[in-house]
Amino acid sequence: MSPPTVWNFSAGPAMLPQSVLEEAAAEMLDWRGCGMSVMEMSHRGPEFTQIIETAEADLRGLLAIPDDYRVLFMQGGGVAENAIVPLNLMRGFTRAAFVDTGIWAGKTIREFGKYGNVHVAATASQACELDGRVYQPYAYIPPESAWDVPAEAAYLHICLNETIGGVAFAEPPARDFGVPLVADVSSTILSRPLDVSRFGLLYGGAQKNIGPAGLTLVIVHDSLLDRALDVCPSAFNYRTVADNGSMYNTPPTYAIYIAGLVFQWLKRQGGLTAIRALNQAKARLLYDTLDASDFYANPIVPAHRSTMNVPFRLRDESLNELFLTRAQQRGLLQLKGHKSVGGMRASIYNAMPLAGVQALVEHLCDFEKDFG
Amino acid sequence: MSPPTVWNFSAGPAMLPQSVLEEAAAEMLDWRGCGMSVMEMSHRGPEFTQIIETAEADLRGLLAIPDDYRVLFMQGGGVAENAIVPLNLMRGFTRAAFVDTGIWAGKTIREFGKYGNVHVAATASQACELDGRVYQPYAYIPPESAWDVPAEAAYLHICLNETIGGVAFAEPPARDFGVPLVADVSSTILSRPLDVSRFGLLYGGAQKNIGPAGLTLVIVHDSLLDRALDVCPSAFNYRTVADNGSMYNTPPTYAIYIAGLVFQWLKRQGGLTAIRALNQAKARLLYDTLDASDFYANPIVPAHRSTMNVPFRLRDESLNELFLTRAQQRGLLQLKGHKSVGGMRASIYNAMPLAGVQALVEHLCDFEKDFG
Repeated sequence: MSPPTVWNFSAGPAMLPQSVLEEAAAEMLDWRGCGMSVMEMSHRGPEFTQIIETAEADLRGLLAIPDDYRVLFMQGGGVAENAIVPLNLMRGFTRAAFVDTGIWAGKTIREFGKYGNVHVAATASQACELDGRVYQPYAYIPPESAWDVPAEAAYLHICLNETIGGVAFAEPPARDFGVPLVADVSSTILSRPLDVSRFGLLYGGAQKNIGPAGLTLVIVHDSLLDRALDVCPSAFNYRTVADNGSMYNTPPTYAIYIAGLVFQWLKRQGGLTAIRALNQAKARLLYDTLDASDFYANPIVPAHRSTMNVPFRLRDESLNELFLTRAQQRGLLQLKGHKSVGGMRASIYNAMPLAGVQALVEHLCDFEKDFG
Repeated sequence: MSPPTVWNFSAGPAMLPQSVLEEAAAEMLDWRGCGMSVMEMSHRGPEFTQIIETAEADLRGLLAIPDDYRVLFMQGGGVAENAIVPLNLMRGFTRAAFVDTGIWAGKTIREFGKYGNVHVAATASQACELDGRVYQPYAYIPPESAWDVPAEAAYLHICLNETIGGVAFAEPPARDFGVPLVADVSSTILSRPLDVSRFGLLYGGAQKNIGPAGLTLVIVHDSLLDRALDVCPSAFNYRTVADNGSMYNTPPTYAIYIAGLVFQWLKRQGGLTAIRALNQAKARLLYDTLDASDFYANPIVPAHRSTMNVPFRLRDESLNELFLTRAQQRGLLQLKGHKSVGGMRASIYNAMPLAGVQALVEHLCDFEKDFG
């Protein structure tokens, strides 16, 4: 019996490419004739050395990471990095600057308060008028021209894509603010090309576009490796991790292996330019459907809409449960919005095929026909 | 073509039970008909909720964990915990006590120095005479009667099994030192029954007896959940992790799933009493072989020998490379000792069958016959 076809719109952990899972299943007991599962390999043995070196090289190729940046395979996800970043960057500084774009930026700001004084460079916490329309708080990215970044800030932090709010930077900031730019890229990395050289530090949990939960990716410029506070745990000290090739402690080997398979899959898809085109087509189809209807609504400024996470509401929220039940019957899973905001959310990361978004759009149209 | 038979003596990541890998491969693309891989599931969905709750219940059953202890599924391994433990336990304290039994205890002590004053309760750093024989430094556990533990210490730390040195506590300390007992159990947990109630806190990386690298197990008494320093990252704060059911940040879901399969496998083996009998038989066979020969040597006090990690040396170390090459030709992998101590080491965790140790013993005997 073949498995049921499902389209999994989870915000993360999320869908993985079918071919990656097939490869992982096929070599679970024996990686390339070595007689061992990747899970069983010493992280210092020749087999895993090949796996991690290939993964890093492929990632560097995909993102065109310059040579003066280190790639670190760490643990703890974006949430842990919200502490690990200041633990690594605050020596000799008392404050850092933040752009408050939503729930994830807010988490970053609150956690930072343990390690320094918060300076809010800009916030979307107020409603805003744009092109004659009023947008709700956190439905837009504050205009870069108005950001206030003190010269003595240790760094400027942004969240490139708000996984819950569905608001995203269309492009990295264009201005040079004179301090290192740090970005949480958990839910956008590898969804499109990104000019890494614009940033001092990028970090993200793997469980959206990279691989299994439990792996954290950090891409950090050499100049930021030696600013750690004394209380920074050695296992999370970027200099220590970098100098030990991500093996100061035992890395999450199997998750790195799966990430490596995902990187190879991405290369086969044509790299980040090709995947961006697909992601834009998927997002356009979904947003166009929502916009064409009075039955559904997405509140985000069009230019700041995420191509990865699409929150939306039914105008009649008493239909929410029925909408989700009908979706589930069609194999459309995990469409319920985050508990903090309610409504619906469709996460459409790299591994979600166009067919999955088409199936969702059919459901949107059918449900509106039946209940609109 | 069937995969080659290999016996993998890696200290971790290490062998996993064949049946666990077979189950994981079989349901990689579709867990129990849900149409998703475990890797793709939302950690908050009903499927993964069932997986993590079953894993915790099975672990509680295997170790008979009392109700007033929390089980936390964390990240970072034993190395990260060497910082996370003091970050969680040092509020209101200035020092903690340590028993220095070798390289891993030493790492714990050095990392602790970031968060408080080290008090060495006892050390095995000097040679010691026992039963008329002189044992080298770190070849024994210092006698408990001579441990000096200050009443104002935040806790007393021990490493129950030194993975590199191959020295282990036969039983947990019998004395009550009046402060919480904290133990690194990375390379011994689940190899035998353990009286959890003797400890305030147990921690260990999963990659020896539990599952894949990237998962850390913490078992902590309720009374130790509210002593965190202000600089403790929220993602690693035991109270926060406990109150959120190990889901304050996204947990390493696939590693938890594999750990759950390992727990079920352990139950099928008859639990920890049965696996202890097997582990003792494996260790006895190997130590008896080493002891019966003048060609090989293990330096550890017999009563303090690890049943998990068996370091040994060839008297003629110029034969080391040849020994390893011949071993590899027979499918005996990862026998090279840790780089800091040299020699050989055979790690024989739960998943190593008796047949693997028998194959190693044959190699030991054949090699001695040919070159002794």
